[in-house]
Amino acid sequence: MADAIITPWEVKGTVDYDKLIKDFGTSKISAELKQRMKKLFGELHVMLSRDIYYSHRDLDAIIGELEAGRKIFIYTGIGPSSEMHIGHIIPFAFTKWLQEKTGANLYVQVTDDEKFLFKKERKLEDIERIADDDILNVIAQGFDPDKTFIFKDTEYIRNMYKLATRIAKEVNFSTMKSVFGFTNSTNVGMIFYPTLQMEPTFFENSYCLIPAAIDQDPYWRVQRDIAEKLGYRKAAQIHSKFLPPLTGIEGKMSASHPDTAILLSDDEKTVERKVMKYAFSGGQQSVELHRKLGGNPDVDVSFQWLSYMFEPDDKKLKQIEDDYRSGKLLSGEMKQILVEKLNSFLSEQRKRKEQAHKLVEKFMYTGALARKMWDTYYE
Amino acid sequence: MADAIITPWEVKGTVDYDKLIKDFGTSKISAELKQRMKKLFGELHVMLSRDIYYSHRDLDAIIGELEAGRKIFIYTGIGPSSEMHIGHIIPFAFTKWLQEKTGANLYVQVTDDEKFLFKKERKLEDIERIADDDILNVIAQGFDPDKTFIFKDTEYIRNMYKLATRIAKEVNFSTMKSVFGFTNSTNVGMIFYPTLQMEPTFFENSYCLIPAAIDQDPYWRVQRDIAEKLGYRKAAQIHSKFLPPLTGIEGKMSASHPDTAILLSDDEKTVERKVMKYAFSGGQQSVELHRKLGGNPDVDVSFQWLSYMFEPDDKKLKQIEDDYRSGKLLSGEMKQILVEKLNSFLSEQRKRKEQAHKLVEKFMYTGALARKMWDTYYE
Repeated sequence: MADAIITPWEVKGTVDYDKLIKDFGTSKISAELKQRMKKLFGELHVMLSRDIYYSHRDLDAIIGELEAGRKIFIYTGIGPSSEMHIGHIIPFAFTKWLQEKTGANLYVQVTDDEKFLFKKERKLEDIERIADDDILNVIAQGFDPDKTFIFKDTEYIRNMYKLATRIAKEVNFSTMKSVFGFTNSTNVGMIFYPTLQMEPTFFENSYCLIPAAIDQDPYWRVQRDIAEKLGYRKAAQIHSKFLPPLTGIEGKMSASHPDTAILLSDDEKTVERKVMKYAFSGGQQSVELHRKLGGNPDVDVSFQWLSYMFEPDDKKLKQIEDDYRSGKLLSGEMKQILVEKLNSFLSEQRKRKEQAHKLVEKFMYTGALARKMWDTYYE
Repeated sequence: MADAIITPWEVKGTVDYDKLIKDFGTSKISAELKQRMKKLFGELHVMLSRDIYYSHRDLDAIIGELEAGRKIFIYTGIGPSSEMHIGHIIPFAFTKWLQEKTGANLYVQVTDDEKFLFKKERKLEDIERIADDDILNVIAQGFDPDKTFIFKDTEYIRNMYKLATRIAKEVNFSTMKSVFGFTNSTNVGMIFYPTLQMEPTFFENSYCLIPAAIDQDPYWRVQRDIAEKLGYRKAAQIHSKFLPPLTGIEGKMSASHPDTAILLSDDEKTVERKVMKYAFSGGQQSVELHRKLGGNPDVDVSFQWLSYMFEPDDKKLKQIEDDYRSGKLLSGEMKQILVEKLNSFLSEQRKRKEQAHKLVEKFMYTGALARKMWDTYYE
């Protein structure tokens, strides 16, 4: 089997998550570490107990800081390339839980520059429109508006550029080539951009924890190489797997292939149609055969989505799994369970997005953390 | 003879200025073009009549615009790498004349980012200190404070970054490599930086004229390749030769080799000592021989400096040249003439620099053009 391709801009093939841990030099989140988190936080998020967040760097140090009563801060981001889909929400749902449990400041970088620079045909005004919509969807997660700063690179560059030049001075083209696969044909904006994605790890003088999908790891490898030279700390990460595309468990969902994704804007009928038509099934070819042989939840995308986050109740999930394996639960019924869960999630999301409009100013400019950040020039 | 090395960061060897015109694909400023300028402006600056500004691109188009009563704008810059020397003042003295004659808006870019990024050992705080001092020296030239905007890249980036990403998207690493001689070891800040030096050519929707030494030409070659794709005009340039170092006519003066340069901060005694001790002389080895054979003004740095700008009176300059060739004027006397001219220039510069302190706000933030620029976000 050919190796999967994993870069911040492309995920192709069947991802061997254990191999990524070896290739990237990260660590598996151990049972002992989970135990410490459970004790510290009073509970464990299902994305941790179910190994959706499965890999890390220095998470033990972060837990140690929190156990000792010291502060950490959290940093994540969103790339506004096209409308947000359900896979984009995973890190934010998890991050919301992290902020609740730690009380930490959260920085959300909206990488409008990156997404504009990355593809020739993209126009900046389209990216900005998408970015504004993404910001509403992020706010809808319910973060603390006085402890959360959401910023677009093209705006906050005014406070970031000086420190960005210090970061950029530590990284040459060779490094960018080998870490990100850049070539001589890569435009010079993309070559510079990673310095800006590294910079928020230096926003506070304490430990930074980054919850993100594992494809973002190259940035943090470079960050960890240069942080101490610049007088800062290496950032800690907690890496998630990718929510599989509707059409099968390979690769990553993409809003540019609408059949593979449920968009946050999809209405109830569209959700039902997409799941019924495209969700890859682990069932048998006929009801008779399914009743006799049972289905395979390991490749059934509807079951996988339920287990990623949409059925948080472990007992109920186990029942669904057992019933599917035994043939009691049919593929169509499995899909119906997911459709209901998705539509109830999306309906809630839409409602909170409506209310998010009036919070944009606070998260971006006038909340306690935002105000402090606009007064801070990083050098 | 090995070719001279000419990049924006290094000038070494004897510069063959005619060859540069061929290599860079620029044009000589013709007698006819000078005639048109003389008619238009009422006079010709000595740096034009004496071919210090000797090469151009599209200067004819600029003159055409002005003849037709249309507006142009002027853009130049200063790299704050070390204290300003007398060679740095040449483009500003000439630019002051250009603004007076054309009434054009002038943009002065202070490339603090570039100078920090370029050398490993440089600290940003030192660069900023130098930049602030350079700005005083620039203001001392007497520009129109309501038609001149002086800005540091690290500050004005807030208004420039969006358009910079559009520029950066049009330029890949291959181009930067071949135009600027960048390598895989070049840091990614330097690789991105040229987009910022190109951007001010897009500040107005009219023709841009750039007076600068010819080593800056690589930027304008790239600018001319991409300007029209981005919906802007190709920038016009007028290129000067380099004021030769005190120690001989090769290369370019450098403040990091204090013997080769007169710094704007040098006091009268220092100026006299440096010129007397280091200024390369075209004279003979003894007074007797000099009286008999005469001196050679073509290699005499003191004479060259007088002819670059410090003796603006053509008749007096001709007399000095003739007297030197005939042996009537001794090398020490030639040096004394230069010392007096330099000290009178520097005394005036110091006086105006003192007064410049109270104008900084206006040129950078509160003058009519500066206010407009801080309200303008380039996209």
